[in-house]
Parts: sequence; structure tokens; C-alpha cells
Amino acid sequence: MIVAYPGSFDPVTYGHLDIIKRCSQKFDKVIVVVMNNSSKKYLFTLEERKQMIKESLVGIDNVEVDSSSALLVDYLHDINVNVLVKGLRALSDFEFEFQMALMNNCLDPDIETFFLMTSNKYSFVSSSMVKEIAKYNGDISNLVPQNIEDKVFERIEKI
Amino acid sequence: MIVAYPGSFDPVTYGHLDIIKRCSQKFDKVIVVVMNNSSKKYLFTLEERKQMIKESLVGIDNVEVDSSSALLVDYLHDINVNVLVKGLRALSDFEFEFQMALMNNCLDPDIETFFLMTSNKYSFVSSSMVKEIAKYNGDISNLVPQNIEDKVFERIEKI
Amino acid sequence: MIVAYPGSFDPVTYGHLDIIKRCSQKFDKVIVVVMNNSSKKYLFTLEERKQMIKESLVGIDNVEVDSSSALLVDYLHDINVNVLVKGLRALSDFEFEFQMALMNNCLDPDIETFFLMTSNKYSFVSSSMVKEIAKYNGDISNLVPQNIEDKVFERIEKI
Amino acid sequence: MIVAYPGSFDPVTYGHLDIIKRCSQKFDKVIVVVMNNSSKKYLFTLEERKQMIKESLVGIDNVEVDSSSALLVDYLHDINVNVLVKGLRALSDFEFEFQMALMNNCLDPDIETFFLMTSNKYSFVSSSMVKEIAKYNGDISNLVPQNIEDKVFERIEKI
Amino acid sequence: MIVAYPGSFDPVTYGHLDIIKRCSQKFDKVIVVVMNNSSKKYLFTLEERKQMIKESLVGIDNVEVDSSSALLVDYLHDINVNVLVKGLRALSDFEFEFQMALMNNCLDPDIETFFLMTSNKYSFVSSSMVKEIAKYNGDISNLVPQNIEDKVFERIEKI
Amino acid sequence: MIVAYPGSFDPVTYGHLDIIKRCSQKFDKVIVVVMNNSSKKYLFTLEERKQMIKESLVGIDNVEVDSSSALLVDYLHDINVNVLVKGLRALSDFEFEFQMALMNNCLDPDIETFFLMTSNKYSFVSSSMVKEIAKYNGDISNLVPQNIEDKVFERIEKI
Repeated sequence: MIVAYPGSFDPVTYGHLDIIKRCSQKFDKVIVVVMNNSSKKYLFTLEERKQMIKESLVGIDNVEVDSSSALLVDYLHDINVNVLVKGLRALSDFEFEFQMALMNNCLDPDIETFFLMTSNKYSFVSSSMVKEIAKYNGDISNLVPQNIEDKVFERIEKI
Repeated sequence: MIVAYPGSFDPVTYGHLDIIKRCSQKFDKVIVVVMNNSSKKYLFTLEERKQMIKESLVGIDNVEVDSSSALLVDYLHDINVNVLVKGLRALSDFEFEFQMALMNNCLDPDIETFFLMTSNKYSFVSSSMVKEIAKYNGDISNLVPQNIEDKVFERIEKI
Repeated sequence: MIVAYPGSFDPVTYGHLDIIKRCSQKFDKVIVVVMNNSSKKYLFTLEERKQMIKESLVGIDNVEVDSSSALLVDYLHDINVNVLVKGLRALSDFEFEFQMALMNNCLDPDIETFFLMTSNKYSFVSSSMVKEIAKYNGDISNLVPQNIEDKVFERIEKI
Repeated sequence: MIVAYPGSFDPVTYGHLDIIKRCSQKFDKVIVVVMNNSSKKYLFTLEERKQMIKESLVGIDNVEVDSSSALLVDYLHDINVNVLVKGLRALSDFEFEFQMALMNNCLDPDIETFFLMTSNKYSFVSSSMVKEIAKYNGDISNLVPQNIEDKVFERIEKI
Repeated sequence: MIVAYPGSFDPVTYGHLDIIKRCSQKFDKVIVVVMNNSSKKYLFTLEERKQMIKESLVGIDNVEVDSSSALLVDYLHDINVNVLVKGLRALSDFEFEFQMALMNNCLDPDIETFFLMTSNKYSFVSSSMVKEIAKYNGDISNLVPQNIEDKVFERIEKI
Repeated sequence: MIVAYPGSFDPVTYGHLDIIKRCSQKFDKVIVVVMNNSSKKYLFTLEERKQMIKESLVGIDNVEVDSSSALLVDYLHDINVNVLVKGLRALSDFEFEFQMALMNNCLDPDIETFFLMTSNKYSFVSSSMVKEIAKYNGDISNLVPQNIEDKVFERIEKI
């Protein structure tokens, strides 16, 4: 089975990587889809976000990194995939993802969303938390891999 | 009993219309109150939002569409109504509406808020979801009536 | 509008009475329905539970106390009422009542449930909490009226 | 991929069948595991519960119905499956299933749990709700298939 | 400051011990209060539950283990302590503990409850989970200390 | 024990003051830390926010008002305090504060966060609610002390 794992990944965190790796062990192939929403502001460009994920997944063969600026269900039609995976960290995720899953199912009843619980040790990690802490020059080494840590601090400083 | 049903309705959805119709069957009169908050940005003007609701309720006699830029409790005093109805879709609604109901009760203990559960098939529908999907040219025909669908796409294109 | 307010009321608390009184001010008539479930164990008999509610509502004319051992929707058909009111204290209530409202709507789509927020000062009061505290001879005077307080202690002692 | 779908299924409902059918369309094989907990009381025997599921899935080839009285992770080891699927109806499910998934992961880190949202129209259906309504001779035809409806009423009457 | 940490501790788990140890580092003294509710059935006697906690806390000087069969607020009066500590694992804890804190505050406004988040790695551990897994002869070594593990299996076998 | 109570306090409300006063009765000293986040817009300056808290706490000796633009854990290191107190009003607070507590514990495992339930009568009060109501010239006298009420209206008018 091929599954798509969509997100902003601005930047990718250990929480995201945990989900990707666990999926890569169960599914034939995982397509990480970096979403680009023209009305959102990102710290990193689409290309940078894709690159950072690729660097963090070296050695894992059945994961592909792609991107999309289209409606997710349209993208899934194009690549002929009808299973999404999403990580749930907490209740607030649950509410939002519940609505998104129902909406996607309304737009295309063939699309299924499988939810995985984020590992306990990453349950509090989010991309925005990473950026907020970095802004104050705090320690983010438990939240993102080394190469991403460097890029976050470099970018934050320039702002 | 006369009840007021306040909201932004930017635009009105099948979820809102479901609540309005169900209320119109139980209460003597339902006043739909289109709220205008000067610090919020709307896709449609106050007049357009009122007009779209009216068009969607043709044939239902005991519903009136009004608007207000005042504090809700002050508006209710002016029209001499002391019962609000609100739709609850999910938990996150519950939390927010709970606080608003307590606040309104603090401002005027005579005001009651009655909550209705949004019908299951509309539980994931929201005005912002409609606009987000339309932005990507997705199918919103299950979320809003035909006339509103047209207006949303027309307006989104201009942006 | 006539509404039904169902519950076990074993015994009625200030939280229940708050809902009943607020409803009596908005609706033409409130029918308090004491439910009897043959597989549940009650501290007070059906007749005692009805009597305690009646005693607590002296002077309020538009409230009637009835009882039922039938399915709630069947009872509502019999008395020709199609609006229920329920109090929500907290999130856990919300989940359960949400399911019950959907189920009742499935059994009879004409039945509406209006939810009211329990007043803040009674948000932690429940019949089971009253009985638990009374068991330890604790102070329940803020939770139930005087006449009910006496009956609870009398009954608990006998156990 | 082969997945296991554990539960009590006392009796199986349209909600369970919805999850099973959707899984059968995505996974190579679905093993429905009827759990037997010696300290729980069931309305139907283990054999009856298995039989009812089989009858409801006629024509779906890649679903197998099995049972277990062992710890779930031990059962999964025995059949060499390391993916569970669970349906989430609501928040309360989420909390409980979250704990169970973490516990199973603690007992065997190789086991993954994939969660699916129960379809909106079955979000309020549970086996215990079915039995409760049947006890009052209410209509359960929207909750379980015809053959199961008959068996539930037959069994409830005998009690 | 002296604080009381009440619970059933049937048996004490690594989750409880984590809270106790963290409190012992911040407060002058922690009194672990093993509650005994005559209407609850326990796997271990009050004396055994106290003993197991004591064995698990060897070397920590400022923790005392006591017990009570009285209403918690009455016990606190007797020992002249007015601060409770409670661990929150998840949302469901939050709801229940919120009600208990409000109730205790109603019974005695001078009593404060401080809540601590259970450490992430123990967020799914509960006494009942320990007993359930032990019943199936599962591995509970990550949930309770060695000495308690032995006692749980010994006692479960006898049942 | 010395504890820190961080927040934006834009402006301080009766809800905040309730937490501060209750803490001042249990702890040796409470340091109210007015946080300044350069990417947030405040109605009042840092100095004004500190001043308003001080005015509201006249007569309470063991409370100190300080401010910080650093990462909270770094500030706590500087002042050599390792206990935070936070008020929980509702579920949404719980989720957010849970994540923050885990994050702070990740940044420094020695830091503990103690949560207190906001008193029932202030459970719906927030700084943003105060400003929103004031914008419509509503009554905020139940939400903030008199001196702060005046300042809020004065400032809102100028906008």
C-alpha cells in the first residue's frame, strides 16, 4: 500500500520523522507531501522544506518527498493514492484532523485517513514551538536533527 | 418564543441553514443576526451576507434577518429578546461557546443560550472551510446552496 | 412551547433546580421526567424522587413532575412533546449528551434537544457526588435544599 | 498488509461493519478479533458473536473472523500480525484508545495502531446503546443488520 | 510547605512514584494518603498498599505514608494540611479532578489543589491497567517496581 | 518556596488576581513575571502592565512583579527559581499548558509547573475578552478592578 503524509514541515521535526519512519516500516511506500498554501507565510521556501526532509531520511529507501499547491484530494487523484496518514499528538489535533478527514471524505469518499499516535516523547513538539524557542536562542536539539537546527538558527537570525 | 441566532455567516452554510430551519419549526420566530466586527475581515459585505441568508430561506415565514455592529447583549436589549440559539459542531465549539454563554450571562443574567447539536452530516462544515476549498477550486456544492456557491467562486476569483 | 427535562434525580440537586427554574422562565411549561431504569439501583424510590422535586419547586406554577419507565422517545410521543432540555456541566456531559441527542434524533427526527450550560456555581454538583459526600457525613448544604439534605442523611444512615 | 481489528462485538453494529468494510478495501486482509474477557459479562457467547459478524460480511472475501482470550499483543505475536486498526467515534474513544495504543506499544514497540474515524452517520452507535434501546423495545434497525436485530430482541426477551 | 497526595494506590505505579519523587524535591514534606472507600473492592488491603509505597520510597526522607477512611477534607483538617497535589495524565483525569477540586474547595475554601502533569513516559500507566495486564500474564515490569510486580502476580494468581 | 507566575497580563484580570492571591497564601513568595514577546502586539506597554498589577496587589507583601523578554527557562535560571504556577480555566488551557509544561521540562528537567484551577466565577474571564467587550463599550466591572477598567476604556478610545 502507498500512503501520503501531508504537512507544512516548516521545518520538519523529530515528531514528523517519527511518523514517517514508523509508516515506512509498515507500508510499501510513503510519499511525504509538502503543502504550499499561498496565503500562509513560511520560514523556509518549499524547496528548502523538501530538502530538509530528504536530508533527514537518508538511508530510508521507500520514502519519497513531493510537494503540492493544489487541493489535497486533487493531488491524491493525480498520483493515484487514496490513503492519507496523519499524526495525532493531542486532543486539539484530534478535533481539527477529524474535521479534515470528514471533509476529505466528503470531497472524495474513496479517500481514507489513518491516524497514528505521535510517540510520547515527541507529543509536545511542533514546528511553531521550534521556531518560537529558536527566536529566544533556546535549545532545540531535542526537537529537530542537527542539520535542521543549524538552518533554523541561521534563518531566524536574519529576520 | 422569539430567539436570536447570531453569527458572521461569511457565507451562510448548510450547517447554519440546518440550525435555522430546525429552530423555525420549534420557535415562534427566529431572528438571524449577522454580526459585524470592525476588526475582522470578511469576504462578503454585511449587506451581501444578509442577502445570501434571505435567498436561502425563501418560503420560511417566521425567520427574519437582521444585523448588528453592537455588543450582542445590547442588541438583544434593543430588540427585547433574551434567548440566543447556537449550534455546536464539536468540542472546540463547546469550549468557546461555553465561555461566551457565561460572559453573556455575566453581562445580563436574564439572557439564556440554548445550544443545538449541528446535524451529523454538517458537523465538519464551516464558513472558513468553504472559502479555503473554493480557493483551490474544490467542490463546495455539499456545503452551501447553489446561489451561494456561485457568489463564493466569483468573489474568490477576484482576490 | 412545552419542554421535557428528563433525568434520574436521585436526588434532585441545586444544579437540576437551576436548570428547571431557568427553563420555567422561558418556556410555557416544563415537564420534569423522572426516569426509571429497571437495571439501575436508586437510593430513593421513583415516588420519593418525584416528591422531592415537587417540594423543591413550590411556588413555580408552570412546572409539572412526571415519570416514565419507557424509552424516552416513546414517552415524548405519548405526551405529545418534541423538545428536550438538558444541562451541560462539563465536557464529559457534552460527549454523552451529544450521543444521546443523535440517538434520539435517529429514533425520531422531529425531536430536538436544547442544551443549557449549568450555572458556574453548580458545575461540580452531581447526585452521585451528593451521596458520596453524605456517606462520609460531609456537608451537602450547598448542593441540595434542606429538606432533601435531611432525607439523604436519613437514607444513607440506614444503609 | 494484514491488519487485526479487535473488539467485543456484543453484538457487531453498522459502525463496526463500516470500519471492517473500509479496511477490507485498503488492506490485503482484515482479521476481526472477537475478544473474550473472563471478567466481563456478554449478552452473546463468543461463538454467537463470531457467527453474527460472519453472517454480516458475506461476500467480502478478505476478512477473517477469529477470537482470543489472551492478551492482545500475545495474540498478535501468535498470528504474526503487527498492525491494529481501531475506529474512533468521539473524544472519549480517543482518550481510551490513546492509552491502549501507548500501552500496546510499551508491551511491544513493533505494534502499530491505525485509527479510522467512524463514518458520521454511525458516530453515535455502540453495542451497549443497541442493547439499551432493545431493552425498551425501541427501533434498532438503523444500528444493526436485520439478522442481528432479530437475535438481539430474542435474547433480550429471555433475560 | 507540607502537601498531601491522596489516592487508592492499588497498587502504586511508576506514575505515582514519579509524582511523589518530584514533589519531595520541591516541598518540605509529602504525605501520601492511601484512601480506603468501604464501597470499593481492592486487590490489596490498606496495610499492603501502604507497605508497598513505603518499600518503593526507601531513601527518600521527607515522604510519609498515611491512610484515611474519612472524607478527604476532614482528614486534612485533622493533620492540619491544606494543600493537595494530584497528577494529571490526560483529559479524562482533568475533568474528574477539576470537579473534585471544586468540590473540595466548596467543602473548605482554604484547601488548594496543585496539579502536576504526569511524566510523558508514564502517561498511560494506571493501577487498573497494571492489574488487567497481569491477569493475562503480560509484562508489567515497565509499570511498577520489581517488588510490586511480584506481589501483583502472586495475588492475581490466587483469584 | 518561591514560585513564578508568568503571563502577558494585557491587562491583568480578576482571574489572574485570584490565582496570585491564592498562591501568596500558600507560598513564601510569588514572582509575577510579565512576559514581553517582540512579535506580539499589546494594548499596554510592559511598564504599564507591571504597574497595573502592582496597583491591584497593594497590601499583599509577598508578591513581587518582574518582567522578562527572555525564554522563560532562562529567566528562571537567572532568578534561581524552578517552580512555575499556571491557572487552568478550561480544557483548551489544559492542552496548551500541558504542551508548554512538557516543553519547559524538556528544556530544563528541574523545572516543575503546578497548575491551579481558576475559581469558578472567573472561569470565563480573559484579557482578550476584557478588551473585546470594552471595544463595544460593554460593562467590564466584573472582570477587572476599577483602576484597570478606567485605563482600558481610555486606551481603547484612543485606538
